[in-house]
Amino acid sequence: MSREVFVLHPRLAADSHSLGETATAHVLLHRNAVVPWLILVPKTGHSDLLELPVALRTVLIDDCAQLARYLRMRRGAEKINFAAIGNLVPQLHLHVVGRRAGDACWPLPVWGHLNATATYSAAEVATIREEVRTALAIG
Amino acid sequence: MSREVFVLHPRLAADSHSLGETATAHVLLHRNAVVPWLILVPKTGHSDLLELPVALRTVLIDDCAQLARYLRMRRGAEKINFAAIGNLVPQLHLHVVGRRAGDACWPLPVWGHLNATATYSAAEVATIREEVRTALAIG
Repeated sequence: MSREVFVLHPRLAADSHSLGETATAHVLLHRNAVVPWLILVPKTGHSDLLELPVALRTVLIDDCAQLARYLRMRRGAEKINFAAIGNLVPQLHLHVVGRRAGDACWPLPVWGHLNATATYSAAEVATIREEVRTALAIG
Repeated sequence: MSREVFVLHPRLAADSHSLGETATAHVLLHRNAVVPWLILVPKTGHSDLLELPVALRTVLIDDCAQLARYLRMRRGAEKINFAAIGNLVPQLHLHVVGRRAGDACWPLPVWGHLNATATYSAAEVATIREEVRTALAIG
């Protein structure tokens, strides 16, 4: 994006809590608390993960790997579903979803299948924000 | 996997045409010809993409990027959906799916939403095999 200001897509902003920013991405928590679901939004104009320059791609996926480790260690995930889809929201965003056998839409993927909903309390969001910032070494 | 023989999961084998192998993965074509859908199955015992050693992960995603480029250049894809899910089949496999506005389940992801079916002719599979082997510089 060079010097342009990166603006988060309004749909992503509406569907999530902001957890902070790394040098290369916004870090979001999906508002639906039924499954632990983090979203990394790279500050780039590219819309497909597989088109990114390798150096940027590597940094971003390293961060996703840290998020995955966090979901396993602290949020009960037994399995990580990782995806870059973007059919509805063209701004590139990387889903890192913690899954476990018997969760609300197991074994289906969450996209288009997660019908149950739950909300995080403000305290829960604050806790997750702190934990994720630690996991990503933000600020 | 060290010296063990890597065996493709029977569900993946049943759902796909084999296109060949790289040094690190089996390359498959999903049998459903409604969307161009390639699957890379790394020869590893790890079940999550984000747990792989970085060097192996990089090679695999580089190959996925080549597959994505192929789907765009030769198979009419306007957009790539990339995912590692594995809730049903625990053996790690990477989906590289070519999408276009108005395709059979647009804008939903294919997983659990693609109800239309079509089959490739033997000639079509042979053509795609050749093209993919060229794209990945296999043999």
